[in-house]
Amino acid sequence: MRLAVIGCGFIGAKRAAAAKGHDIVVVCDPDADRRDALARQTGARAVADWHDALSADIDAALIATTHDRLAEIALGAVRSGRHVLVEKPAGRTPQEARPIAEAAAKSGATIKVGFNHRFHPALARAKALAEEGAIGPLLFIRGRYGHGGRLGYEKEWRFVPQISGGGELIDQGSHLIDLSRWFLGDLRLAYGAAPTYFWQGKVDDNCFLALEGRDGRMAWLHASWTEWKNLFSFEIMGKTGKLTIDGLGGSYGVERLTLHRMLPEMGPPETTTWEYPFPDRSFVDEFANFIAAIEGRAPAVGSINDAIANLEIVQAVYNRARA
Amino acid sequence: MRLAVIGCGFIGAKRAAAAKGHDIVVVCDPDADRRDALARQTGARAVADWHDALSADIDAALIATTHDRLAEIALGAVRSGRHVLVEKPAGRTPQEARPIAEAAAKSGATIKVGFNHRFHPALARAKALAEEGAIGPLLFIRGRYGHGGRLGYEKEWRFVPQISGGGELIDQGSHLIDLSRWFLGDLRLAYGAAPTYFWQGKVDDNCFLALEGRDGRMAWLHASWTEWKNLFSFEIMGKTGKLTIDGLGGSYGVERLTLHRMLPEMGPPETTTWEYPFPDRSFVDEFANFIAAIEGRAPAVGSINDAIANLEIVQAVYNRARA
Amino acid sequence: MRLAVIGCGFIGAKRAAAAKGHDIVVVCDPDADRRDALARQTGARAVADWHDALSADIDAALIATTHDRLAEIALGAVRSGRHVLVEKPAGRTPQEARPIAEAAAKSGATIKVGFNHRFHPALARAKALAEEGAIGPLLFIRGRYGHGGRLGYEKEWRFVPQISGGGELIDQGSHLIDLSRWFLGDLRLAYGAAPTYFWQGKVDDNCFLALEGRDGRMAWLHASWTEWKNLFSFEIMGKTGKLTIDGLGGSYGVERLTLHRMLPEMGPPETTTWEYPFPDRSFVDEFANFIAAIEGRAPAVGSINDAIANLEIVQAVYNRARA
Amino acid sequence: MRLAVIGCGFIGAKRAAAAKGHDIVVVCDPDADRRDALARQTGARAVADWHDALSADIDAALIATTHDRLAEIALGAVRSGRHVLVEKPAGRTPQEARPIAEAAAKSGATIKVGFNHRFHPALARAKALAEEGAIGPLLFIRGRYGHGGRLGYEKEWRFVPQISGGGELIDQGSHLIDLSRWFLGDLRLAYGAAPTYFWQGKVDDNCFLALEGRDGRMAWLHASWTEWKNLFSFEIMGKTGKLTIDGLGGSYGVERLTLHRMLPEMGPPETTTWEYPFPDRSFVDEFANFIAAIEGRAPAVGSINDAIANLEIVQAVYNRARA
Repeated sequence: MRLAVIGCGFIGAKRAAAAKGHDIVVVCDPDADRRDALARQTGARAVADWHDALSADIDAALIATTHDRLAEIALGAVRSGRHVLVEKPAGRTPQEARPIAEAAAKSGATIKVGFNHRFHPALARAKALAEEGAIGPLLFIRGRYGHGGRLGYEKEWRFVPQISGGGELIDQGSHLIDLSRWFLGDLRLAYGAAPTYFWQGKVDDNCFLALEGRDGRMAWLHASWTEWKNLFSFEIMGKTGKLTIDGLGGSYGVERLTLHRMLPEMGPPETTTWEYPFPDRSFVDEFANFIAAIEGRAPAVGSINDAIANLEIVQAVYNRARA
Repeated sequence: MRLAVIGCGFIGAKRAAAAKGHDIVVVCDPDADRRDALARQTGARAVADWHDALSADIDAALIATTHDRLAEIALGAVRSGRHVLVEKPAGRTPQEARPIAEAAAKSGATIKVGFNHRFHPALARAKALAEEGAIGPLLFIRGRYGHGGRLGYEKEWRFVPQISGGGELIDQGSHLIDLSRWFLGDLRLAYGAAPTYFWQGKVDDNCFLALEGRDGRMAWLHASWTEWKNLFSFEIMGKTGKLTIDGLGGSYGVERLTLHRMLPEMGPPETTTWEYPFPDRSFVDEFANFIAAIEGRAPAVGSINDAIANLEIVQAVYNRARA
Repeated sequence: MRLAVIGCGFIGAKRAAAAKGHDIVVVCDPDADRRDALARQTGARAVADWHDALSADIDAALIATTHDRLAEIALGAVRSGRHVLVEKPAGRTPQEARPIAEAAAKSGATIKVGFNHRFHPALARAKALAEEGAIGPLLFIRGRYGHGGRLGYEKEWRFVPQISGGGELIDQGSHLIDLSRWFLGDLRLAYGAAPTYFWQGKVDDNCFLALEGRDGRMAWLHASWTEWKNLFSFEIMGKTGKLTIDGLGGSYGVERLTLHRMLPEMGPPETTTWEYPFPDRSFVDEFANFIAAIEGRAPAVGSINDAIANLEIVQAVYNRARA
Repeated sequence: MRLAVIGCGFIGAKRAAAAKGHDIVVVCDPDADRRDALARQTGARAVADWHDALSADIDAALIATTHDRLAEIALGAVRSGRHVLVEKPAGRTPQEARPIAEAAAKSGATIKVGFNHRFHPALARAKALAEEGAIGPLLFIRGRYGHGGRLGYEKEWRFVPQISGGGELIDQGSHLIDLSRWFLGDLRLAYGAAPTYFWQGKVDDNCFLALEGRDGRMAWLHASWTEWKNLFSFEIMGKTGKLTIDGLGGSYGVERLTLHRMLPEMGPPETTTWEYPFPDRSFVDEFANFIAAIEGRAPAVGSINDAIANLEIVQAVYNRARA
């Protein structure tokens, strides 16, 4: 596969590294230092303008820019007949993301959205266990995700709504929404709040979400930039057991999956825990899924329609907050 | 102090044990076996009808019946000039509980409501730390509380709405509401749901609550009778740190308080944990507070007004569910 | 099976409860209160003298006396043609225990010694995993076991050498020795110390043991009555992984088995943990093994020869201490 | 202070970084790449031969070579009138290290040995607590320390006895010895074994040590290069409590100190835990102690005499193994 990497920041570089074995033809970033650094690493040609990247001889584009450019570039890439792996949220609004889906429907291109959390081993195994019926029909989900920012965090691009499209809700909140939809199917916003408690800025630093699925199944979610101790916790309750995922590695703690299985006599459940203290492989596995989707061997795990449904929930919360 | 214990079940017996050093004059329960057992233990006279208990020569009544009798008996006790320690929720509805407050205002009686969680050592120390400013101004609270029932749970009195006034919301949910009000002050219902997911019965087995205080401070609460592994977690976020309380002893795990204190350079916080692996002393300490309140040495921690405000939230959720 | 229970203390009562479904014909204890209580529970006849118990029409005797009577009674039972389940250590010295083995060899009786730790689920599963080769050939074992006594502990029978045969070494130490022998096979004493640090008495309150097996495989063991926080930890290292068992339930914490499996690239191992938060079933499972051994369906897990080898190590440490 | 850094590997570079604010005049390493890299970082002159480094105008030398050069260079530095911070073990044998102490006694130079574990915050606080009497008179210590090597580990310098002076005993084992001596005072070898279980090489990959102090106080230590999951655990038992230190950061897990304090009624102790999830500061704090020792404001924590006593124990174990 011949590839362009558009956006050469931290994530773009990780995407490039995860594409080992493929041919990165061109890398693109308005910042010369960043595009040159990645060009040296990959042996690719460096360009400043994404139109130039798309005019190269490539099969697919990996798009890892700030939020404001994701949809525009992804749309351009699809329209030019390329497959696309675009970072979440794939746009600042559902209005931005929908044309990508429409264009892909016409061109037959594969669009995958970078919901990399689905490829964390504890979450992937939890999904497989849930589908095997290990905890019976699902009842509800609780998710907590957050970090505590850093000195000067309020001066970063995430605090400029025109660039980011929003704060913690569109950042870590949308990962929780995506994971919840993955396990529970379609969800509607029952309640949402996106307050700003701490960081001086124009975006939300916390979001509280109640999402409801069929039969009243609930996803009860909170994401926070004021979670002073980094935290990732995702709990999935079923009729006969419970799955919990804690940690994502690094400062979020060792990634762990725990299965609690109810016994017929009830009382304390049978508990098994798996630990994943390994370096994060989610980008590698996600790229493999992207290739498999292009080759028709597997569906894209995290599609553009997932991104649109996600952004509709995000927008509904922001609209509610403004109302 | 001369005491009556009205309701001789598990909790009534714990209240009697916690009153060591005082004179339990009479114990009362319609069930002869239960009242006789407690009479033997305490040396008290046993009666079946609570009117007879109140006609004894007593200073105070400890009322630990099912929910449907709490308000009626507490009101009778206050009107007859006695001090009262009544179990939470102190009635099935705010309408039932309000007359107790009014009568006490007239008689000058002390009414304490048995929100015993405030007397768990981890929570009591968390409250003291929060008041000393250990985590700065408070931002939000997250609470999770639950158990998994037991075989035949749906046949117990909690599943009869006329007796219980509701399911998990009025049971463990109201403890979370009370603790949140203790830390954040008055709260209004922003969102509430009380679904029935698992237990075949006429009451809710889960409740999801978003309670909002001044300045948008949030209490984000979930209680569950389908929490297959017993869980108590209460997290209090402030501008400069975080307090977490986990476990309540026994099957809820060892009770622990953790203080995360942010450093000026941000990054990982300074963390201190205290463990309380001791037998539950909350009933003893709560009784001591009741006596101190009667003697004017301290306010009642958990008042009838706290119970009324709590029931107003509970009722609002149930009304919303019926709407 | 028709049974006698000889010794009606805490352990004797547990043995009786674990024999559910069998016929307890006679219970025996010099203490009238204890034997009468167990007689009421089991419907058995109560006698004071163990000779009378053995003259009843029984197939097997469960012997749970203080250490000084174990060997004498077990020998009598075997000589009278009965099968025997005798508590560890099965005597105060190897000299006391050896005649039991000799008599059983003649009579064909089954003798099982109550090394109940082998029947704790985490240890039983660890043994099965080790035998399947889950961690490769074994390298060494580390064991730590201890508690902190209680007020007045030094006045209990364990502090009278004539009754107990020794202190912490023959108490919890011999469990560590037995488990090490179970995993590593025969072991010789390379180093042993049995000091008295804290408890005023004539017996050791700590023991430190280095036991060596074939190829220099080491069991590195410490047991303590001055372990202020109750502790059970047993770690088994193999060439390709590690098994750790922590907790035994109750005040020792939830029983857990963890398997660390090395990956070909080394680095952090793959880790799986199983939790056993259930009430202790080891006595029930051990009794089932006793019956299976009598019926020739399985070997006795924890034999009289295991007990003799164990006492030889204990005695070697005490001799060294006296030298 | 004007400094030479002799040995520019990983540890030498850490020592240089920890000396911020002082003037690193010269850096020295036979390997040109390594000395040039550190020269660029520090602005120092680079030399290949340590004699040249000592002929520069310096007050003190930081010596971080392989074990075989430590004593020779430290002796040279002391004899030339410089203060010395030399890595542990300060020589391969006590015979190598003793002349340093003798020369320093004559010259009045300050010699500090890099037992940096004493400067880890959990251990430093544990030492302060023990000295305040927080756990009463000390009874014994248990230490476990280990890692699992890495692919090709057996080809590294630690496996060449002429360079390293030994395997895991002189590596991590000597840290455990040093910490035990720090808490318990002088110790004699009661038992020691240094087997080779796994790594194909001429040195030990495990060591088991029983060190005895006054009144039979024991340090019961094990260090291992076959500890597949990285482990640091140091437990200090006193008459009224227990201190445990777990983790050293990074792959050893978060550094934690726990204080268990016995209550008068015994039973479960009062437990407090402090976490240190911060980047390792031990080298910075150790350097500050070195400067304070030079300036006469504090004793050197970790002296050349500590190193000699440590090597005497190491040598006794190796002699026993050879016997």
